[in-house]
Amino acid sequence: MKNLIILSVCFGLTFFLFINMVFADTCADAYANDRTAIMELQSRYLFALDFRDAETYASTFTEDGALHWARGEIKGRKAIYDFIASGIYNPAGSAEKGKWPAASRHFVTNQIIKVDGNTARSFSYWFEATNNTADRKTMVLGLFGHYEDELVKIDGQWYFKKRAIYNEGLEGRHKAGEENPAR
Amino acid sequence: MKNLIILSVCFGLTFFLFINMVFADTCADAYANDRTAIMELQSRYLFALDFRDAETYASTFTEDGALHWARGEIKGRKAIYDFIASGIYNPAGSAEKGKWPAASRHFVTNQIIKVDGNTARSFSYWFEATNNTADRKTMVLGLFGHYEDELVKIDGQWYFKKRAIYNEGLEGRHKAGEENPAR
Amino acid sequence: MKNLIILSVCFGLTFFLFINMVFADTCADAYANDRTAIMELQSRYLFALDFRDAETYASTFTEDGALHWARGEIKGRKAIYDFIASGIYNPAGSAEKGKWPAASRHFVTNQIIKVDGNTARSFSYWFEATNNTADRKTMVLGLFGHYEDELVKIDGQWYFKKRAIYNEGLEGRHKAGEENPAR
Repeated sequence: MKNLIILSVCFGLTFFLFINMVFADTCADAYANDRTAIMELQSRYLFALDFRDAETYASTFTEDGALHWARGEIKGRKAIYDFIASGIYNPAGSAEKGKWPAASRHFVTNQIIKVDGNTARSFSYWFEATNNTADRKTMVLGLFGHYEDELVKIDGQWYFKKRAIYNEGLEGRHKAGEENPAR
Repeated sequence: MKNLIILSVCFGLTFFLFINMVFADTCADAYANDRTAIMELQSRYLFALDFRDAETYASTFTEDGALHWARGEIKGRKAIYDFIASGIYNPAGSAEKGKWPAASRHFVTNQIIKVDGNTARSFSYWFEATNNTADRKTMVLGLFGHYEDELVKIDGQWYFKKRAIYNEGLEGRHKAGEENPAR
Repeated sequence: MKNLIILSVCFGLTFFLFINMVFADTCADAYANDRTAIMELQSRYLFALDFRDAETYASTFTEDGALHWARGEIKGRKAIYDFIASGIYNPAGSAEKGKWPAASRHFVTNQIIKVDGNTARSFSYWFEATNNTADRKTMVLGLFGHYEDELVKIDGQWYFKKRAIYNEGLEGRHKAGEENPAR
């Protein structure tokens, strides 16, 4: 009798869970989680870039991660940290008399993210807005282009293994007229 | 015998569900759902702002929600509704003879969203595009900056408890040269 | 005795799964998956447009899909393919002597996506950046507006059934001063 009660409860719960799972249809789809995490990573990268936070910036790359940008390749988290910390990259310029410092902000959109287990490739667009103008109040579009990223998931966390930055305003870094890279 | 059949079915289904769950790895991750809902909220806010839909705009805030913008703080859903409904905020201007009204559109990207149960903090970038120009066909970048949001989830729905708008083109509302707020 | 062991294992697993599911709270929410997939579709559309990849562009529409743009309606995947393949749409222009081709890039943000089973409606903002200028290094904001999409999910894949493109810089395609379409 006792067995029969346990058996009934067990069967009832199992049946409930089974029906639940069949109609839920989300449990097998990890893609949304991965794409979400990678978009978050790309946002973290840009806040760190524009606010010149070298530590956070470097932390978005793997230990051996590589950044391909306008002036070449920077390889390894340490070198990437030094790159930002050195202040070489400072498009905004410093504050002039009676004015506040100008800001450069980079915006990312149009993510195409292809996940394959613990690796992924991402293609996305970026553009820059800046108020590095005489009065700080006039704002202009700066540059634009796209990113091509190779990503890897380590202990549940996504990192850039390689980030290549293409720039339509720089000779040698543009892709206009070429084939769709995200195809 | 009957018991044995039920027992077998029960065991089979349970084992199937268990294997399913172990390999699915998504069921414990509510983050994608919350981040998605908050991005949707931020989009709803901007459609309402730019199309001057006071009701929808106010509905993105909690009853006691606060909006910190260029000219101060507006506190409470009712006051926030009045703010938009009054038409004080109308950067686009009205239509001139022979022309259609100009539009102001605000774009949000680069979301960093940190969820902690039923509360969250969000950092994101915004910029404005406008055709408030002589011919309505010339479009320019207007302003840009970032948002810092405190959010709360009530009955499964996310709201702004506080939205602070920073603006790199306004003295006193810029954050250029300061520390990464999203760190 | 054997039955009792199987029964115990079965009960233990079932109870574990039940507790797991109750506290997970994500399994019933397919919205994040659908919104993610639709955002990905919209990105794929824009990479294909700007890199003039007619095949990928056409593949984002259903067989009978319709594109409503500045100069009218294009109906059916075949006609949409021909539209891009013909090269009629080429805002960037070709390369001049000593310069690389100009690029036109369209950015999408602010998605509001309303899913209803296997159909959905999406509202989003777009703007264009271009370096179709004398030196290719000066970049300007091109046009902006919003999309209104009707989508359908076929065999687990989302497609545009109808995409309407509104443009604030074109007479007859603007929506400034009208009601919030995403309300």
